[in-house]
Amino acid sequence: MFIERLAIIGVGLIGGSFALALKQKQLVGTVIGYGRSEASLQKAVELGVIDEYSLDLTEVVTNADIVFVATPLGVMEQMFVDMSSALKADALITDGGSAKQSVVESARKGLGEKFSRFVPAHPIAGKEQSGVEAADAELYIAHRVILTPVSETDADAVKTIDELWQAVGANVVEMDVEHHDKVLAATSHLPHMLAYALVDSLASLQERQEIFEYAAGGFADFSRIASSSPEMWHDICFSNKEQLLEMLNHFDEHIDKIRHAISENNSEDLLAVFERAKTARDNFTKIRDKQLRKQ
Amino acid sequence: MFIERLAIIGVGLIGGSFALALKQKQLVGTVIGYGRSEASLQKAVELGVIDEYSLDLTEVVTNADIVFVATPLGVMEQMFVDMSSALKADALITDGGSAKQSVVESARKGLGEKFSRFVPAHPIAGKEQSGVEAADAELYIAHRVILTPVSETDADAVKTIDELWQAVGANVVEMDVEHHDKVLAATSHLPHMLAYALVDSLASLQERQEIFEYAAGGFADFSRIASSSPEMWHDICFSNKEQLLEMLNHFDEHIDKIRHAISENNSEDLLAVFERAKTARDNFTKIRDKQLRKQ
Repeated sequence: MFIERLAIIGVGLIGGSFALALKQKQLVGTVIGYGRSEASLQKAVELGVIDEYSLDLTEVVTNADIVFVATPLGVMEQMFVDMSSALKADALITDGGSAKQSVVESARKGLGEKFSRFVPAHPIAGKEQSGVEAADAELYIAHRVILTPVSETDADAVKTIDELWQAVGANVVEMDVEHHDKVLAATSHLPHMLAYALVDSLASLQERQEIFEYAAGGFADFSRIASSSPEMWHDICFSNKEQLLEMLNHFDEHIDKIRHAISENNSEDLLAVFERAKTARDNFTKIRDKQLRKQ
Repeated sequence: MFIERLAIIGVGLIGGSFALALKQKQLVGTVIGYGRSEASLQKAVELGVIDEYSLDLTEVVTNADIVFVATPLGVMEQMFVDMSSALKADALITDGGSAKQSVVESARKGLGEKFSRFVPAHPIAGKEQSGVEAADAELYIAHRVILTPVSETDADAVKTIDELWQAVGANVVEMDVEHHDKVLAATSHLPHMLAYALVDSLASLQERQEIFEYAAGGFADFSRIASSSPEMWHDICFSNKEQLLEMLNHFDEHIDKIRHAISENNSEDLLAVFERAKTARDNFTKIRDKQLRKQ
């Protein structure tokens, strides 16, 4: 397996790390980048993440064997539409988006008959920093990558993308599109909403200066993800709207149980919630420790 | 400043660490412990946290110069009632509770005319582990301790407790009781409720096994505090009931803004919340880095 020409559409943390990792494994010939900002693309060349770039998308994808779309979710559809006619017949297209139903729909619409060559993928890896400067050849090692092929997706396309991710150290699994979006709404999208809402609600209090001064380590851990990119999360929310709204409602029922138990002085119910949660969280710690030991 | 005889009521992480730190600084003669479990008190003696113990509270406080109440909040009132008649006339009483209005009321009721010798205190320090095995002489170094004296509190009593906490490395500040409870509801009690509710809500989903398997680092950080002691948090909730309920309602308004923006496809509002939150969280990071550099 060797990729003569790899196109990275959106050369940030996710796209840049993929390119760097493949280069390190000597699995790629030329990497060509596309982006909106020439300064950032020049930076990517300086950092050795890409070999060349163009601000013209069709130029970038022409002759590419694999096209990795790692832009924000909100512009993916436009990317698929714009690249479609310039793609080689046997080119493979894949992405790194955090929600999959919307990407699959965009690709189906934008890529037309080439949709069967598109492999929806979601690498579960990231940092709070974004941009090509944060790109890291080891970002994906021992991290999960979820592929969500649909009925039209070519089996050989899936196999190639699977092998590529494995080659850069990732653990690849396949999942149904809807299932992916539900699991991610629960484990990632909902927690981000809670962190943003918590920080926003504290920042709106008159005592905010003092509040942030007295906040301890628990708050620091809890709210760290509220430093994530607002633009990226804006796109994720709208791309996974239904599942996220459902998860927000589900959360509401559970915070209401706590609120109700406190206001009604219901000791037993309150303790029951905390004990269930502690048991589940301690169990998660065990699962996570086992995963980390495998790395 | 030297304490001939220090009584620790509730020899766990908080009480045990205070005793260890004072011993390390050679600021204390004899430390005597009280608790419900003899096995745990014996363990505390073996670990050198206390010198002796009794299961009889009056015996423990008789002749004590300083009595540090570090039990769960739910039993503090009973402790004050039971110790009151056995206290020396010039004994100082203090505590380590995470909510202060309820402790002040309990002490006023339980200690009677000795209430003026009670200095309400809250060391902002902790670990997920609890119990005397987790006691650590360095727990309080560079951590804040908030004293919340009221109008009846003797000024010299406050001065002594202030000096003791400073002697073990803490940064001592004074705060109004109600203000303390509001700041802590915001920075600590509310985040714990969110973490418990999040983990409980995910654990109730059919996909829970997968959900916990696919949860990434963000979720791990976010939910860590849901491993805290259910009994302790049960007591905190009821001890700071009004402030916590108010903060839960305040949070609700902010998560509703997010929910509403998503369901109405209001890009601008959603981005505005995320940007405000990110700015506030980044600002908190700066405050925290400055605090950590001082340590």
